[in-house]
Amino acid sequence: MRHGTQGVDEAWEEMRVHLVADIGGTWSRLAWRNQCSDPPRMVRLSNRDYPSLGALLARGCERLGLEPAAVGQLILALPAPVTPGTECIPLTNIAWTASRSELQTLFPAARIRLVNDFQAAALGVLPPARAEPLQQGHSGPDHAVVVTGPGTGLGLAWIADARQPDLPHATEGGHSGFAPETASQRALAEWLGTKFAFVSWERVVSGPGLAWIHAFLARQQEPKVETPEILRMAEAGDEAAMDSIRLWLSCLAAWVGNLALLFKPGGGIYLTGGMTRHVARWLDADFIDRINQRGVMSDVVRQTPIYRSLVEEPGIQGALALACLPKEDDDP
Amino acid sequence: MRHGTQGVDEAWEEMRVHLVADIGGTWSRLAWRNQCSDPPRMVRLSNRDYPSLGALLARGCERLGLEPAAVGQLILALPAPVTPGTECIPLTNIAWTASRSELQTLFPAARIRLVNDFQAAALGVLPPARAEPLQQGHSGPDHAVVVTGPGTGLGLAWIADARQPDLPHATEGGHSGFAPETASQRALAEWLGTKFAFVSWERVVSGPGLAWIHAFLARQQEPKVETPEILRMAEAGDEAAMDSIRLWLSCLAAWVGNLALLFKPGGGIYLTGGMTRHVARWLDADFIDRINQRGVMSDVVRQTPIYRSLVEEPGIQGALALACLPKEDDDP
Repeated sequence: MRHGTQGVDEAWEEMRVHLVADIGGTWSRLAWRNQCSDPPRMVRLSNRDYPSLGALLARGCERLGLEPAAVGQLILALPAPVTPGTECIPLTNIAWTASRSELQTLFPAARIRLVNDFQAAALGVLPPARAEPLQQGHSGPDHAVVVTGPGTGLGLAWIADARQPDLPHATEGGHSGFAPETASQRALAEWLGTKFAFVSWERVVSGPGLAWIHAFLARQQEPKVETPEILRMAEAGDEAAMDSIRLWLSCLAAWVGNLALLFKPGGGIYLTGGMTRHVARWLDADFIDRINQRGVMSDVVRQTPIYRSLVEEPGIQGALALACLPKEDDDP
Repeated sequence: MRHGTQGVDEAWEEMRVHLVADIGGTWSRLAWRNQCSDPPRMVRLSNRDYPSLGALLARGCERLGLEPAAVGQLILALPAPVTPGTECIPLTNIAWTASRSELQTLFPAARIRLVNDFQAAALGVLPPARAEPLQQGHSGPDHAVVVTGPGTGLGLAWIADARQPDLPHATEGGHSGFAPETASQRALAEWLGTKFAFVSWERVVSGPGLAWIHAFLARQQEPKVETPEILRMAEAGDEAAMDSIRLWLSCLAAWVGNLALLFKPGGGIYLTGGMTRHVARWLDADFIDRINQRGVMSDVVRQTPIYRSLVEEPGIQGALALACLPKEDDDP
């Protein structure tokens, strides 16, 4: 399935050409470099121009002036649950499949590693040097970290010890049950319950979630205004759009506060994802207060460091970092 | 604060007298042994007979025929959030305080380690040899484990890699927001919202939670029947008691299913705690089905191994195991 590295000189391994790709829902990014200390060269491609993952990767190499046969290590961050050892991985929201044997044919000399896109993104947001602290907290000797990112979906990953970064543990936590706290949130949950068999956090705390909230407040049956438009309207001072964002933010705050209790991550919680960037101006003291309002355990939440990641392309950054981590034999 | 072990011969360290204590809400248990391979000697004391933690420990040593000065390592599992380095730790639900310097005076030769009681219990339920599998699942190469236990409260701890057991990561996840899924659960959440400022999972999925559910179904303002009585009535065939247990179990199933998504623990989820023992007969195929009903992600949950721990006194077992783990310098 992949080429072993036993007996290969480590310094040589370090210097093999790394190609990494972050396959998104609409756009994909490729980057490569000769060794870990080099600045990467990067290219962005629109998925819809290519019939398959292989076609996109081949064209990406061409654009980068890179011979596929020269690639010594290939890391693909995929929008899909990645099960180690599985030959074919169907991607979520794109009609493509990642086939390990086809990839190996295309990149015959490469050690190939497939990871979940949010696993890579979680690695990409570390360390805290590239993050804005929203709450200082008090970390103590524990270095567990949680990374969450509302975007098309609601990503969640955890890292047991951020001092020894390894492949983050990707979860499907965004699909766990939404826990409404306020009367508005409860009414929203009840209404969404008439639309969906299961009301997860992701139904609410995501890009599409904002459009559903806007529809709910406007007493429409389903979204009529798309999320980018709601964001533009709010920035222009539209009250209905702003109300939608306020309700959305209160749900994000509940999600983050609950994560602080569920994981108790001394190393903090990092917010990333497209929606986090879009609502950055509203992540204010009120937002932090809402995170901390957890009944008898408010003090525990208050001690949790909370950061907004400033890393622009965490998926590709994480994949590049992963290419330079020491490898273990049971890695996926 | 504690005696260092640098330069101490490891074999000698292994052979120092270990005293461990699991301080419960009503009863406390003490156990000691000369070395890790010995069977422990154990004693149980009623907290209310003692004015302080020190008095209880002194009497426990007497009952065990153990000189406090001979104790080389003392591990206390405490019902409280334990912050490393804090001198005084007030216990939850008992008017006692654990003072490190007082403990050191009582046990002058001991290396003292204070841990959270559920941290110890989580270590005590591993490995799976002493657990009943409720769902086989498919663990793959990931060995993360989650331990949860409804009892007086709702404990939650996680372990990044169960093959290398270290002190589990205790959390306050039981205090995160309750996510109702069914109409009955939503009505319960709304009603509890009129009683408590914040409706956490612990308000529902715990011993006291069952009494609140019984009151809710009986349209009473607050619990009139205590939890042990409800359990007895259900066993005797009382329909109202059985309805309460069914609603309680559906909430436990939602909690466990959500944990499978939030942590994606390849090593599985272990159920422990007094309430798990009491409802063991009802942890049937329906219960597992409810755990797995998580919308689009039901398959992910179905792959999660789920166990019911059969360890009788996980707190004391975990504390004994902890005494025999290699120590790190930044351990609490």
